[in-house]
Amino acid sequence: MTNKVSGDLFIIGGNEDKDGDMEILSTFIKDTKTREGTIGILTTPTGYPDEVGGEYRDIFMKLGAQKVELLHIDTRPKAEESVFLEKIHTLSALFMTGGDQNRLSSIIGGTSFFKGIQKAWNEGMIIAGTSAGAAIMSRHMIVSGKTKANHEKSNLEMGVGFGFLEDVVIDQHFSQRARFGRLLHAIAQNPQIIGVGIDENTAVWVREGGRYFEVIGEHSVTVIDGCKLSFVDIAEKAESEEVTITGVQLHSLAKGYRFDLETRQLIMKEKRTTR
Amino acid sequence: MTNKVSGDLFIIGGNEDKDGDMEILSTFIKDTKTREGTIGILTTPTGYPDEVGGEYRDIFMKLGAQKVELLHIDTRPKAEESVFLEKIHTLSALFMTGGDQNRLSSIIGGTSFFKGIQKAWNEGMIIAGTSAGAAIMSRHMIVSGKTKANHEKSNLEMGVGFGFLEDVVIDQHFSQRARFGRLLHAIAQNPQIIGVGIDENTAVWVREGGRYFEVIGEHSVTVIDGCKLSFVDIAEKAESEEVTITGVQLHSLAKGYRFDLETRQLIMKEKRTTR
Repeated sequence: MTNKVSGDLFIIGGNEDKDGDMEILSTFIKDTKTREGTIGILTTPTGYPDEVGGEYRDIFMKLGAQKVELLHIDTRPKAEESVFLEKIHTLSALFMTGGDQNRLSSIIGGTSFFKGIQKAWNEGMIIAGTSAGAAIMSRHMIVSGKTKANHEKSNLEMGVGFGFLEDVVIDQHFSQRARFGRLLHAIAQNPQIIGVGIDENTAVWVREGGRYFEVIGEHSVTVIDGCKLSFVDIAEKAESEEVTITGVQLHSLAKGYRFDLETRQLIMKEKRTTR
Repeated sequence: MTNKVSGDLFIIGGNEDKDGDMEILSTFIKDTKTREGTIGILTTPTGYPDEVGGEYRDIFMKLGAQKVELLHIDTRPKAEESVFLEKIHTLSALFMTGGDQNRLSSIIGGTSFFKGIQKAWNEGMIIAGTSAGAAIMSRHMIVSGKTKANHEKSNLEMGVGFGFLEDVVIDQHFSQRARFGRLLHAIAQNPQIIGVGIDENTAVWVREGGRYFEVIGEHSVTVIDGCKLSFVDIAEKAESEEVTITGVQLHSLAKGYRFDLETRQLIMKEKRTTR
């Protein structure tokens, strides 16, 4: 650890606007301009790295980025290659595409490349990710889990993400894919963490070394906080059974609102200037 | 008002099982056997009264009901006819089908038929309703409201229901139609009430004159309680804008759990015998 502050995070709920005002991506690009260097696009999550990565490169250039580079790391050996490890020191920001968060954890997790980006982030490098690239950001990670909207029983699978946010679990495409039940289930399993459900074309911009986040984009961010819950019966339930949980704190935050990740409370707007 | 206790309510989230163990409908029929009389099926919500009502009549007979009668009231004048008003006194229970809750409020609301069932319910008549027939039960009623799962902005329309539950708003098909956001919006508008979101093939069985409800059926009931919320900005927002609300209490209850409607808390199972 250095005494510097870790870099901002842009945790995007997927399906962010790419041809309108591009609020989320343009806020990200604007933030990267506070630093020297190239924007790296990590295409590991997707099976179409050239298409998906190329689209983001074109958008970032259009939005005024000076240098953008695709990082096609699709095997663990590549995540040890010096050509990629040396790149890390040239990056102002790393953007992780959508796809499958299992590919990120299985290909990048624990490698020299991961250790490199973790160190760079600790020293201020900005990290952004959409969809799978968002899910991987927290320590607790939802790997998969069906939703009742599809008339299926929940069978939540959890894993370990990159840990840029501790004590948090991210879910994305939140309202659009009706994931309220599965995020609540994740909190029933881990009441000490907070669940952050991010709608599509909406993002959580984590600032000041993780002290708080600000909501940007079109829809809302739902925060489920189980730390004061009064009752949960998950330990007595079989995997496919419905869980009962009571006394959970719930927050739904639209664009412009800030949430304190330490106190787990809304930061009131009138108080902002005094902080 | 009499000094009797008002009748039980069965508030069903829609799509209840009709050919398996029929847990919800058989619990309802079993409850009706505590009283003398006919089960009336009010088909007002549906445009297919014979088909929809006939299916429920057949099921109720199969489940052991002695007498079942269809009440086809599809105009306000019919809701004043003595033939229907006299029927009310013969009923052990009234079952309201699904369809459109606007038809219930516009055809039945405020009529002599409504006053008759209200009085009968105050004297112990059981009332059940599924889907639209569930939505109408509370004083505050969601008339319509799109959900973000369809990539639409919320435009919630509220109305006044039959008021068998005060300080409550019901939503149905809750998880299956991704209605979390719209119920939260209803609570942002009316923080003093509680939102009760009922999944499909799941029901809220309101007992002891409304003192508590028990969850029956396959999935869960979500309770959103805004009475202690810390912040809401709905007054400053245009109709289609996302609302911010924080500090809401949330409960998710599976089959067999009971919720106290006065204290707005789970009734712990070990305490049940002492009550």
